[in-house]
Amino acid sequence: MTASLGEFDLIARYFTRPVRRAVLGVGDDCALLPAPTAGEQLAISSDMLLEGRHFLPDADPEALGHKALAVNLSDLAAVGARPLAFTLALALPLAEARWLEGFARGLLHLADAHDIELVGGDTTRGPRNICITVLGTVPQGQALLRSAAQAGDDLWVSGTVGEARLALGHRLGEWSLDAAAQTATFARMDQPTPRVALGLALRGVAHAAIDVSDGLLADLGHLLRQSGVGATVNADACPASPALRNQSAPRRRLCQLAGGDDYELLFTAPAAARNAVQTAAAQATTAVTRIGSIDAQPGLRLIDAAGQVLDNAYVGFDHFRSA
Amino acid sequence: MTASLGEFDLIARYFTRPVRRAVLGVGDDCALLPAPTAGEQLAISSDMLLEGRHFLPDADPEALGHKALAVNLSDLAAVGARPLAFTLALALPLAEARWLEGFARGLLHLADAHDIELVGGDTTRGPRNICITVLGTVPQGQALLRSAAQAGDDLWVSGTVGEARLALGHRLGEWSLDAAAQTATFARMDQPTPRVALGLALRGVAHAAIDVSDGLLADLGHLLRQSGVGATVNADACPASPALRNQSAPRRRLCQLAGGDDYELLFTAPAAARNAVQTAAAQATTAVTRIGSIDAQPGLRLIDAAGQVLDNAYVGFDHFRSA
Repeated sequence: MTASLGEFDLIARYFTRPVRRAVLGVGDDCALLPAPTAGEQLAISSDMLLEGRHFLPDADPEALGHKALAVNLSDLAAVGARPLAFTLALALPLAEARWLEGFARGLLHLADAHDIELVGGDTTRGPRNICITVLGTVPQGQALLRSAAQAGDDLWVSGTVGEARLALGHRLGEWSLDAAAQTATFARMDQPTPRVALGLALRGVAHAAIDVSDGLLADLGHLLRQSGVGATVNADACPASPALRNQSAPRRRLCQLAGGDDYELLFTAPAAARNAVQTAAAQATTAVTRIGSIDAQPGLRLIDAAGQVLDNAYVGFDHFRSA
Repeated sequence: MTASLGEFDLIARYFTRPVRRAVLGVGDDCALLPAPTAGEQLAISSDMLLEGRHFLPDADPEALGHKALAVNLSDLAAVGARPLAFTLALALPLAEARWLEGFARGLLHLADAHDIELVGGDTTRGPRNICITVLGTVPQGQALLRSAAQAGDDLWVSGTVGEARLALGHRLGEWSLDAAAQTATFARMDQPTPRVALGLALRGVAHAAIDVSDGLLADLGHLLRQSGVGATVNADACPASPALRNQSAPRRRLCQLAGGDDYELLFTAPAAARNAVQTAAAQATTAVTRIGSIDAQPGLRLIDAAGQVLDNAYVGFDHFRSA
């Protein structure tokens, strides 16, 4: 079954489906897509996931198919773009039918949920590596940029943060979670929900946005640097799931402030837009929580619920810095 | 120098340049591009190049930067699309300044030659892997498709074919080339020229097109299957460089018919369009040669200059079939 499947058979078998919006899908030198309507810009993002770095060798292929697309959709969500299509370049040590079938199922299920098509890509033999490029559209001038935060803005985050890191710590043996906490957090780490609907609803409401992938404070740092502002963050205001609320404060803070992979949206909006933010959140059926504010003074000030200043030892994940 | 460079420093240092056409370039969750003009379609293609499979560990980084983009531009050329922008996802075992500098130089030099921008991507630590996604535009209905060949069409190829395979054979120790042949063929293998100008000039003239990456006959096979036609190919008509003309007939045929990586365009056009094809070729300053014809009868018939039928033992390269 494995080694005799040719590249073109593989593509045909697992990834080719009837073309819907695309003019031409998988199987030619390029895919062809209708141009966006006038007044819209194209948003594009690429992410590369490697075995041993972004996922474990025994990762469930269906969850992995979901996650590989989810992290890309999350980038579209962060600029408020509507997903349009994506390509997949895939390196695999072996063309294993079981793995491919599961991977394609997870990938295409999420694609269907967002009404987007896999329009092309590449497959090759090599260390397992998944590279997805997503395309989306956003009305001209309405994209949520990292550089658009303004002093006086509220700082918001969607959903809950820290669960992916809590799950990772259990898997790495840093700590041990009970069965209920494992169930609750593993799904969060393995099959994150890209906040696409929220990103769309926040257009015209939020100023700046970024998705939490490297860690809440690390990602906030990118946003602050690009906006030329600072922020005050209330560590105790960060929304936590029950599994996280049961942890010690230091562990909870580590997971929430330094942990990545949550794929929630971190965004800023004027204080006058609080109702509009809540309306957008309701529209997207996604909870949002105010966790701080943007300051004219550069730098990041971390405080607790009592307003006491905390040491910020929560550095983010950097693919070339960390081992 | 190496291990202390963070991911964001790397991007900033080697790949970020002032934005030109893009609305927003490297550094946000997505890049933003102005939408194509009305009546244009988007063409998109992704290719993944792995060390040890598509290039050798000691490959010159500058040539590799060129080649990684060239193979993607070649896909745009094959559909007659005008290059617009590209993303780069890069896995590297180490963030080596020397390697990155060379790679970026080769990549951006070719990008400049085609007036396109690197608009985003990803960098991560892992086995060396280069995944580029290119975007282009093509007026609606004018793309050159693999499926558009018609019985009675001439079969054409651009430039010369087989040199990349001749160079590879020398490097693999299958045969030995003299110094002049090495010089002539290595450049061809390491820094292929994407036939973008020819692809553009052939719009409205050619019927079907594909680029020669897997091997001339293998790629022709894709085109024939998708068009539901057959072809007769004159092996002796395939255009050969001096280095190839000095080889034995069997080796020349192997290189020309089975060798990939030439990135020439293989295309079909009605016999009535021969002058128009030559005009397009002159416009693109790219030689073209008629090497056969498209038949209603399915299958591929290989003949020599005397019209004698040859055995077709020239299978193409398949990433999952070949070891």
